[in-house]
Amino acid sequence: MAFQFWFDFASTYSYPAAMRIESVARSHRVDVEWNAFLLGPVFKAQGWSDSPFNIYPAKGKYMWRDLERICNSLSIPFRRPKVFPRSGLLPARIATRFKGSTWIPDFVRAVYRANFADDLDISDSAVVTHCLVELGLDAGEIISGARSVESKSMLRSQNSVAAQLNVFGAPSFVVNNELFWGNDRLEQALQWLETHQKTE
Amino acid sequence: MAFQFWFDFASTYSYPAAMRIESVARSHRVDVEWNAFLLGPVFKAQGWSDSPFNIYPAKGKYMWRDLERICNSLSIPFRRPKVFPRSGLLPARIATRFKGSTWIPDFVRAVYRANFADDLDISDSAVVTHCLVELGLDAGEIISGARSVESKSMLRSQNSVAAQLNVFGAPSFVVNNELFWGNDRLEQALQWLETHQKTE
Repeated sequence: MAFQFWFDFASTYSYPAAMRIESVARSHRVDVEWNAFLLGPVFKAQGWSDSPFNIYPAKGKYMWRDLERICNSLSIPFRRPKVFPRSGLLPARIATRFKGSTWIPDFVRAVYRANFADDLDISDSAVVTHCLVELGLDAGEIISGARSVESKSMLRSQNSVAAQLNVFGAPSFVVNNELFWGNDRLEQALQWLETHQKTE
Repeated sequence: MAFQFWFDFASTYSYPAAMRIESVARSHRVDVEWNAFLLGPVFKAQGWSDSPFNIYPAKGKYMWRDLERICNSLSIPFRRPKVFPRSGLLPARIATRFKGSTWIPDFVRAVYRANFADDLDISDSAVVTHCLVELGLDAGEIISGARSVESKSMLRSQNSVAAQLNVFGAPSFVVNNELFWGNDRLEQALQWLETHQKTE
């Protein structure tokens, strides 16, 4: 049974989830399936043209404080980005086009760090290039691959799958069609997998 | 330093929080201050005339499943109410008018059980009467006290305090102006109190 991690590079709570998921999952002896998707279309379907954290200021104010506390408690660097949300389209296309490659988890973490620790513009291909190069990868080849018509269509398909799974926010974890939403549900989702593997 | 618990009787995630808060707080040697308030005015201020769980069906569908899982894991009875949300105005006036009385925690739990385990209409004074009577209380006196002009004004003041504390959802926990939102943040809020009591 796959343990699916659904994330959007613009999503704030996906940042701590992305940083800790591999080590937490490893302690449960679980492999993570990394699924990038875009929240934008999901939000648009609900009538939002912006992040709900911007539309509802009380919620947004709370989220930034809460995220700061969470990062502190996990010893993850955090700096509130000057621009929010930033488009994660290019890195999402890369993560989708090269899904399953061994370097994907490191790349995803590098992009999240760029956005939420270094306050860099992850929609800028120079920033994404740097994330790839520091992993010793051929950034030019990867980025041009991610910009192909096929890659764009792959990301659209990913978004359709997310919708079919009723994923409506990020991060989300899906275990055998059972949906868990939020960084704070990671342990519960892994526990669910453990319990249901044994009984099936 | 007071440990404030803010709840709305209509709020789904406030149900497990209300059921477990006393025992969890006791293990931290913390006394809970029980604060009823109404989410309705808070939601109206954000442009919602209904619960966001009704306005956004994907979120609502997830919430009911998530709540069921939480109640199962805590061994708390749960039945999805036929009507949602139900007005918690009368019990909120009672909880506010008699705030600090020793019977309040039992009363709050009884009302939550009526709503989320027995699927009873908590806006019906007969249901609220039953919750009071089973605690050996004088329901007639309490209900007429809660319907006084003074009691109505007390609840409005409670709501103003909640707004000043930036409470925007329920359940919320407030420790020295530090806000924690959600049943899943109870332990973190208690931990915060412990850490900051020691260092102040």
